[in-house]
Amino acid sequence: MADSKAITPRGKDFSAWYNELIQRAELADYSPVRGCMVIRPNGYAIWELMQRALDDMFKETGHQNAYFPLFIPQSFLAREAEHVEGFAPELAVVTHGGGKELEEPLVVRPTSETIIYAMMGKWIQSWRDLPLLLNQWCNVVRWEMRTRLFLRTTEFLWQEGHTAHATEAEAEAETLLILGVYRRFMEEWMAMPVVTGLKTSSEKFAGALKTYSCEAMMQDNRALQAGTSHNLGQNFAKAFDVTFQTADGELDHVWSTSWGVSTRLIGGLIMTHGDDTGMVCPPRLAQWQVVIVPIWKTAEEMVATHAAAAELQVTLRSAGIRVKVDARDGIKPGAKYYEWEARGAPLRLEIGPRDLAAGTAMLARRTGGKEPVPQQGLADRVLQELSAMQQQLLTAAVARREANSLRGPKSRQEFIDFIERDGGFVYAGFCGDPAVEAEIKEQTKATIRCLPDPEFRSAEAPTTCVWTGRPSVVEAMWARAY
Amino acid sequence: MADSKAITPRGKDFSAWYNELIQRAELADYSPVRGCMVIRPNGYAIWELMQRALDDMFKETGHQNAYFPLFIPQSFLAREAEHVEGFAPELAVVTHGGGKELEEPLVVRPTSETIIYAMMGKWIQSWRDLPLLLNQWCNVVRWEMRTRLFLRTTEFLWQEGHTAHATEAEAEAETLLILGVYRRFMEEWMAMPVVTGLKTSSEKFAGALKTYSCEAMMQDNRALQAGTSHNLGQNFAKAFDVTFQTADGELDHVWSTSWGVSTRLIGGLIMTHGDDTGMVCPPRLAQWQVVIVPIWKTAEEMVATHAAAAELQVTLRSAGIRVKVDARDGIKPGAKYYEWEARGAPLRLEIGPRDLAAGTAMLARRTGGKEPVPQQGLADRVLQELSAMQQQLLTAAVARREANSLRGPKSRQEFIDFIERDGGFVYAGFCGDPAVEAEIKEQTKATIRCLPDPEFRSAEAPTTCVWTGRPSVVEAMWARAY
Repeated sequence: MADSKAITPRGKDFSAWYNELIQRAELADYSPVRGCMVIRPNGYAIWELMQRALDDMFKETGHQNAYFPLFIPQSFLAREAEHVEGFAPELAVVTHGGGKELEEPLVVRPTSETIIYAMMGKWIQSWRDLPLLLNQWCNVVRWEMRTRLFLRTTEFLWQEGHTAHATEAEAEAETLLILGVYRRFMEEWMAMPVVTGLKTSSEKFAGALKTYSCEAMMQDNRALQAGTSHNLGQNFAKAFDVTFQTADGELDHVWSTSWGVSTRLIGGLIMTHGDDTGMVCPPRLAQWQVVIVPIWKTAEEMVATHAAAAELQVTLRSAGIRVKVDARDGIKPGAKYYEWEARGAPLRLEIGPRDLAAGTAMLARRTGGKEPVPQQGLADRVLQELSAMQQQLLTAAVARREANSLRGPKSRQEFIDFIERDGGFVYAGFCGDPAVEAEIKEQTKATIRCLPDPEFRSAEAPTTCVWTGRPSVVEAMWARAY
Repeated sequence: MADSKAITPRGKDFSAWYNELIQRAELADYSPVRGCMVIRPNGYAIWELMQRALDDMFKETGHQNAYFPLFIPQSFLAREAEHVEGFAPELAVVTHGGGKELEEPLVVRPTSETIIYAMMGKWIQSWRDLPLLLNQWCNVVRWEMRTRLFLRTTEFLWQEGHTAHATEAEAEAETLLILGVYRRFMEEWMAMPVVTGLKTSSEKFAGALKTYSCEAMMQDNRALQAGTSHNLGQNFAKAFDVTFQTADGELDHVWSTSWGVSTRLIGGLIMTHGDDTGMVCPPRLAQWQVVIVPIWKTAEEMVATHAAAAELQVTLRSAGIRVKVDARDGIKPGAKYYEWEARGAPLRLEIGPRDLAAGTAMLARRTGGKEPVPQQGLADRVLQELSAMQQQLLTAAVARREANSLRGPKSRQEFIDFIERDGGFVYAGFCGDPAVEAEIKEQTKATIRCLPDPEFRSAEAPTTCVWTGRPSVVEAMWARAY
């Protein structure tokens, strides 16, 4: 049972709030293994729902799942120069197996490009074998110095898509297709709005030609990079010599992409919707969308309310609603409410003797508000409530993001002031100079989250760089980030 | 596209047949990483269907999924003496992380008892927290000297259930509940009959009180241990000090179980049903239960047959059937048939101009037989065919097993002769002496697969040990095994 102490309010200490919420809702726990977390059933149930939704979207767009080895020969990583430079400091290395020292150490995959391209070389001969559209659900390991539950852990769960195409244009189209899938999932399932756009060279994936990302704003106004989609060009194909015979009989290297989202999304979900009482879970990702709590004093009341709860459960389940009846004895209704609120269950239905007599149930929303509703036609009502809550959470998150975004600061000082008080996203002109990007990061801890896609850009394109006053070549979006 | 050379017949070289079938059906491939395989999309699709079915069964019986770390501190394994002895020779060890040598090496999990009990100790305080019914889908690593695709690989995918209970009786009931779930899955989904029973001490899981297993007979008459369910007693609870307050206010160690099945099941599926043409997949686990092949010569015929194929696809899909239309151009129908037969698709529907004119489709069964069927009412017909084939595969496998089982050999020599010609399962009396068990293994390479559960025992209980002539204390089932 959850601890009954209140959690630290968000406004007091956002980081403490986040950690305490996760413990209270029993989403995850610290493990005795450095930097590794345990995902508890309440947290894993969210991941399963996320997986199901994303996996359906991947399959609808023609992707197939496969599984590649956990271990990668150390030499493979070295074949793509930028890639090894990016990942070398984060590797976990197996040096002994079966009681003996290995001839070549094996790296625990930090990502699987290298082992996958080694296999693609074997499978792809002609343009008829393309596109090859693969995805893998697995664990990866990156040795992190500072870890946080869900957001940054040494081991995490994710999916990594890897595709090979005959032309550069097809690879770019795939990269953008998946960026769109990610955005749709984050908005329609997580109710978490994102700004999509291109990463600058200094922020792109090690080995990619271009990286696109989805950036969400958390309630502390920091940005969370929630998913990335990479156009790898022919970099890995050349490093692993993955060639194909074109329709014209020429030999060419394939054009490839990779893309991923991880259990980090659960952290994003918490920090987008949670409140001082605990988790608020968007209905589409809630393990239990409705929790029914029977309330009784006498034995007769117990029998009657339990029977009514069971009947309602059947009715709601038939309508495709995920329902739990909390009929535990020896725990007061108030304690149950508290527990399910901490876990973020969207709706609660209380059924006591008076509700039974009136043919109603008391419906309480996790987002506020409580009223009696007729048991007649309850499934339709619940579906409406869930759908409305899903929409309302997205609308509120968009409004919060917009209220905490600054467009076109007039001066470097206005930019700095906004960032210093953790104001949120800043959209401004940028001269394109990596040295300037680095200087801003150094002085303000804000990074260019992305060069926003057209629909997120300001109505009027900025003409000067917010930092240097030189002509702006592109509009950038800055924020402090997780 | 699959290679067009025929595969080695089973009767000629079963092992070569198995490996070639896997390559031909594109189920898996060898990787450049020692002992590790790549599960290709056709193979992984089977694993996903297996996961879905088993996961539903686990959840129906009250289990919840969670996720525990890949890495386990080396010292944890040492806490349970038998456990470390059993697994020490098979460990992969991470000695370096983030560019530095670790203070304590981390073992890549060969199974997760130790890390899970370390966490259970934190979560369980009172009898109210019990039973704790957890399951995890993950990868594990056991350094194997001789590996075979699916059957024995250094890394494999599996599920491992871990449960904690207040009493010994509840732990035993859980162990048997899961044994029953496994058996039901293997019979009803895989159409693979199994003999269930208890392992002898020498064959039980390292650290368990008792191990039950499901043993299936492959087409070469060898046994495959397809799943195990362990009653761990209080062994791990004591090693990790997992205690709880009983309803009476006493302190006791929990009673626990663990159980698992792995991607090895795909190997079992292949070796139970495959034939010299390739894979034969039971309908309930087939990625595509029906493959529709339109046949055309002229452009008009192409339009008409493709339209009819698409229409049938919609009809069958609406009935919950997994259907693929193979409309690839430039590949002859015969080549398509050959490819889908190698992959084991249960039914094929051919639609050419003459079928269109007659309002029929040609239905071909992977298990033999081909006939025209009316397009009218096709979904019902296909569902009947799939259901009949599922049943037929199980019936045939049971018959094959029984035909290759020897009950009550009259002498040691009859036992030896049967085993030497790879005859199958032998049921016979056993004196219970571990030294005799070891001697039989040494001399015949046959091991006691299990002490069969009552329904698998011979009608007449054996009175003497088949090897020593001493009084029999139990009936045992021997076989050479994978």
